[in-house]
Amino acid sequence: MPERVRILEVGPRDGLQNEPRSVPTAAKLRFIAALADAGLNEIEASSFVHPRAIPQLADADALFPAGPKDDGVRYSALVPNARGLDRALAAGVRRIAVFTAASETFAQRNVRMGIAQSLAVCADLIARAKVAGLGVRGYVGMSFVCPYEGDVPKERVRPLVERLLELGADEVGVSDTLGAATPREIRETVGHLVARVPAARLALHLHNTYGTALANVLAGLDLGLRSFDAAAAGLGGCPYAPGAAGNLATEDLVYMLERMGYATGVDLERLVAAGAAMATQLGREPDSRSWRVRGSVRER
Amino acid sequence: MPERVRILEVGPRDGLQNEPRSVPTAAKLRFIAALADAGLNEIEASSFVHPRAIPQLADADALFPAGPKDDGVRYSALVPNARGLDRALAAGVRRIAVFTAASETFAQRNVRMGIAQSLAVCADLIARAKVAGLGVRGYVGMSFVCPYEGDVPKERVRPLVERLLELGADEVGVSDTLGAATPREIRETVGHLVARVPAARLALHLHNTYGTALANVLAGLDLGLRSFDAAAAGLGGCPYAPGAAGNLATEDLVYMLERMGYATGVDLERLVAAGAAMATQLGREPDSRSWRVRGSVRER
Repeated sequence: MPERVRILEVGPRDGLQNEPRSVPTAAKLRFIAALADAGLNEIEASSFVHPRAIPQLADADALFPAGPKDDGVRYSALVPNARGLDRALAAGVRRIAVFTAASETFAQRNVRMGIAQSLAVCADLIARAKVAGLGVRGYVGMSFVCPYEGDVPKERVRPLVERLLELGADEVGVSDTLGAATPREIRETVGHLVARVPAARLALHLHNTYGTALANVLAGLDLGLRSFDAAAAGLGGCPYAPGAAGNLATEDLVYMLERMGYATGVDLERLVAAGAAMATQLGREPDSRSWRVRGSVRER
Repeated sequence: MPERVRILEVGPRDGLQNEPRSVPTAAKLRFIAALADAGLNEIEASSFVHPRAIPQLADADALFPAGPKDDGVRYSALVPNARGLDRALAAGVRRIAVFTAASETFAQRNVRMGIAQSLAVCADLIARAKVAGLGVRGYVGMSFVCPYEGDVPKERVRPLVERLLELGADEVGVSDTLGAATPREIRETVGHLVARVPAARLALHLHNTYGTALANVLAGLDLGLRSFDAAAAGLGGCPYAPGAAGNLATEDLVYMLERMGYATGVDLERLVAAGAAMATQLGREPDSRSWRVRGSVRER
């Protein structure tokens, strides 16, 4: 039996929140349904952030059904504050993600509060989520390289990961928000983490700004991690991280993992089609190699 | 002192031979000079193949100076046959590359002869090259995955590598010509190789069709390899390998290696500029992440 690797599809949230063009709710629902149909069973569908902060995700409430959907897919939403959690609960969300960062400057610019204050917000959100029986993921943004502060010391990352887990998070997404890390930083920082934290409670959230994301996945696999975030068509970027490009393309992650003998449960052809449809909606080309190679073969 | 990693820049040969648009000789000379100026000290400048087979490289003779150039750069050329070697010697080439493949079908389609016959050609070429005092690299194409034959067994690759070294090649470029390999195949096949062949005599020649090239570099580094091929701007593809995309972009290789603490001797800014100038000449965008991220920062 091939070993299973989990993929959290973050295209509808981390991807679309950073695309300049807004997408109609109906197209988002089609995108999410197509991702689920391709076999992705963990999908971060939106963020209950203030609509003025990220207008692209203002329709988060409309993306979740009234109750839990019985299709075997875990839909989740990012929740930045108490008001967001109220909305998420009203929308029937069963799994949330909370966010802090390992760079003080980035935290200030991204969530307009320092790391300590953002941890306090996470604590409140996780406590309320647990009472409501929700699943919780924590994110530690800018865990490797920060556009403002440069290299992020591993000693700054581990206490944040441990704190989120102590607070009750089921898992933590250790994030290369800038997409500038290489396997050296992954091995240093994640190696430091897995000395104290079970690898099963860690995920790598990678952007592909410098093309190193799949090499970083390999470094993560070698350290025992079996959970990675990605976005169909490599959607995204980050307005608060100058130069940051999109997330690692789910298509390319699936290609590498499946060929390496891991099971992802994803049908790559359907996934390529789902990513291409959303890219068309956005008026851009999908940023995945698996899409491109199919195009080049079609042209023959 | 950071450890040195060698990069063979193959853009002028493997890149341009697979680009649909031909490039004037003067532009090639500017490209090669710009690559050398960026610090690349091993450059495969062209191929002395029959001009009808690859019209894009018909001007190989004009790219080499009459004698060895005293700029510390090792310029080399691919040589497919005796006539090609005559031309290379006449042009003053000091280092050649010869080619065979680990897939019988690909060998037949690419060089119009079987593996055994291509090895015999390599033997003749290497013998003559050694008499003339030339350096020699051997290539083993399609060492991992073949578009016609599928997975290539490692047991088929090692004898070819060993034979080329026995014949007198200084090193062998083990090639993922299709760009479909993942770290699993690299670890299997290159692991099998380094059990018998010194890692210092091996290089990895990677294409990035499925985005796995840098992950494959990491697998190679872990196995002790310190020599990798790449093409500025990710130029290339392969007309005999359906779906194959360009070479690993030198820019992205340099980014990852330098950030991992290896010394490449390359100035990334100059390299990005050299690749962008050639891409403009070809009427396409550079296919490197390092180029794109600079563009996205410029737009701000």
